[in-house]
Amino acid sequence: MNRRHLLSLLGAGLLALWLPLASVQAQAPTSDPLPSWNDTAPKQAIIDFVTRVTREGGRDFVPVEERIATFDNDGTLWAEQPIYFQFAFALDEVRRLGPQRPEWRGKEPFRSVIIGDLRALLTAGEKDLQEIVTITHTGMTTAEFTKAVKDWLATARHPTKKRPYTDLVYQPQIELLRYLRSNGFKTFIVSGGGVEFMRAFAERAYGIPPEQVVGSSAMTKFEIGADGKPVLLKEPEVEFVDDGPGKPVGINRFIGRRPILAFGNSDGDLQMLQWTAAGDGARFMGIVHHTDAEREWAYDRQSHIGRLDMAWDEAQAKGWTVVDMKRDWRIIFPEPREKPGDLP
Amino acid sequence: MNRRHLLSLLGAGLLALWLPLASVQAQAPTSDPLPSWNDTAPKQAIIDFVTRVTREGGRDFVPVEERIATFDNDGTLWAEQPIYFQFAFALDEVRRLGPQRPEWRGKEPFRSVIIGDLRALLTAGEKDLQEIVTITHTGMTTAEFTKAVKDWLATARHPTKKRPYTDLVYQPQIELLRYLRSNGFKTFIVSGGGVEFMRAFAERAYGIPPEQVVGSSAMTKFEIGADGKPVLLKEPEVEFVDDGPGKPVGINRFIGRRPILAFGNSDGDLQMLQWTAAGDGARFMGIVHHTDAEREWAYDRQSHIGRLDMAWDEAQAKGWTVVDMKRDWRIIFPEPREKPGDLP
Repeated sequence: MNRRHLLSLLGAGLLALWLPLASVQAQAPTSDPLPSWNDTAPKQAIIDFVTRVTREGGRDFVPVEERIATFDNDGTLWAEQPIYFQFAFALDEVRRLGPQRPEWRGKEPFRSVIIGDLRALLTAGEKDLQEIVTITHTGMTTAEFTKAVKDWLATARHPTKKRPYTDLVYQPQIELLRYLRSNGFKTFIVSGGGVEFMRAFAERAYGIPPEQVVGSSAMTKFEIGADGKPVLLKEPEVEFVDDGPGKPVGINRFIGRRPILAFGNSDGDLQMLQWTAAGDGARFMGIVHHTDAEREWAYDRQSHIGRLDMAWDEAQAKGWTVVDMKRDWRIIFPEPREKPGDLP
Repeated sequence: MNRRHLLSLLGAGLLALWLPLASVQAQAPTSDPLPSWNDTAPKQAIIDFVTRVTREGGRDFVPVEERIATFDNDGTLWAEQPIYFQFAFALDEVRRLGPQRPEWRGKEPFRSVIIGDLRALLTAGEKDLQEIVTITHTGMTTAEFTKAVKDWLATARHPTKKRPYTDLVYQPQIELLRYLRSNGFKTFIVSGGGVEFMRAFAERAYGIPPEQVVGSSAMTKFEIGADGKPVLLKEPEVEFVDDGPGKPVGINRFIGRRPILAFGNSDGDLQMLQWTAAGDGARFMGIVHHTDAEREWAYDRQSHIGRLDMAWDEAQAKGWTVVDMKRDWRIIFPEPREKPGDLP
């Protein structure tokens, strides 16, 4: 969660209705590593790239240790409408904690959240939205925060899809992550989302372990508790915003190598894609374009969430791969699972 | 490099003499994973621990993905006397850059560094030492800095050992890292040293890839250069000090999991060891005690560099493993290699 996004967290989409359509999920041949991708140009470009960089002795061969792939999360690996899921968590936390905080009942923005007055929230300023995030993300230990996120993910349902949030990952991307790993890639998340929020589900949902999640963070403080046990306290101060130009900075800080493949979906990913493109040798830059108002959502240049404008222009100018969700993805979300949150 | 260490970077040890002694490096049986360790208690404690956490169905079994091991660098994986090697790099950089910076000739602390007046440097204040670090570590791109470190490592020689700095890694620890990895552990460096400095050699010297190096850092800025190519600029502002209480903070930020094994050698590692010890299940906390004035150096409670005082007391109180370098390590440094910097 970061300041730049706070104003756009609540868009008109918050109130939007969505009509689910059954998607045809026919079985693909097992030899296809990307069965949920249609046989259009992006799938071919991915397979060509992976084939080239893994062909020993070939001109584009990349040693295993340099096969770094970075993925944005919101809108690239899972959905981000009608509001960032992390902000949905923050709103639900205010409601959950409300009974213990009687002083909130007369105080904005908490009052509107608790009584469900979404219209009032839509007009709230950045300061109010920041306060909702701060109060729900700091002032507790890292262990308490992780527990709160896991509890929420286990019970919360998306307002229109009526499914657990971790069911709203993109099946084609799960397959792509798996395909890359089976070809020696190390897959990372590089997202503006909170690093501890994402780590609570990234391993089960994407097969990406905590140490391969790069995100925004609050300051953290080490303390020895009254019981003699050390704790890490999340403090109400922004430490790092992993968005826009912060993404290559975060890649340098956490990974220390330049990716050879990067995937995003919005202008917040532009610098990560530029940084990836500027390396030597074969590169793959991908952008998910949200074009499917029926199965998912359709938005780009005018959207408050996940705006795709400058990065789209640059992708077209530079020949990066733009995935048209409606045209290129045969399936978007995985089938409902017995245990929500596990890899499909 | 961090502020808290600056004053201790130059100790009396800077002028110390050292007489090398040939060490007996007999061949050990190949079935022994730690041939450079004597058969004393620490070696047995390590093997017992690894055996317990890897025995499937056993009470202390730990799944592979949770087998996180963190190692301090200076004094734990390689030597740190008579001055931190990273500070030796900074001094050499001032000398290398001197001819291009005529203004330095009349200006302290640069004048003393350039003319080799170590006695004057010893009396320099923190501000002067900070200036040496800042001028040699910031104001360039990350790529330029990495090149400078690699060039230095390829040519510089330790003042008394007369060997490349990357030859002064501890052979027993190289074997331990390898032994842990062969048992499914992911090995990390968590050090007060600069993250980009360490990444320049950690993969070749220790088999630890850049994305598993946690360290101190300067602020970094993303910019599109005049040629249209993006660069990351290292700026003269401290971003993060990965020392003392900063170590568990760094572990949380970069790794997102609690280690089950941690190794350090000084009070700067105390909180990392406490944080490791406070987890559930089997744990291993190790401390290297520098006791070998002949083969390496002997120092602990009174040392300006790598002071071991509070952490030693806590180790004894809590039963952590203290490695007595003289007693427990059969070999300290690896044999000279054909290509300095490669894994022994």
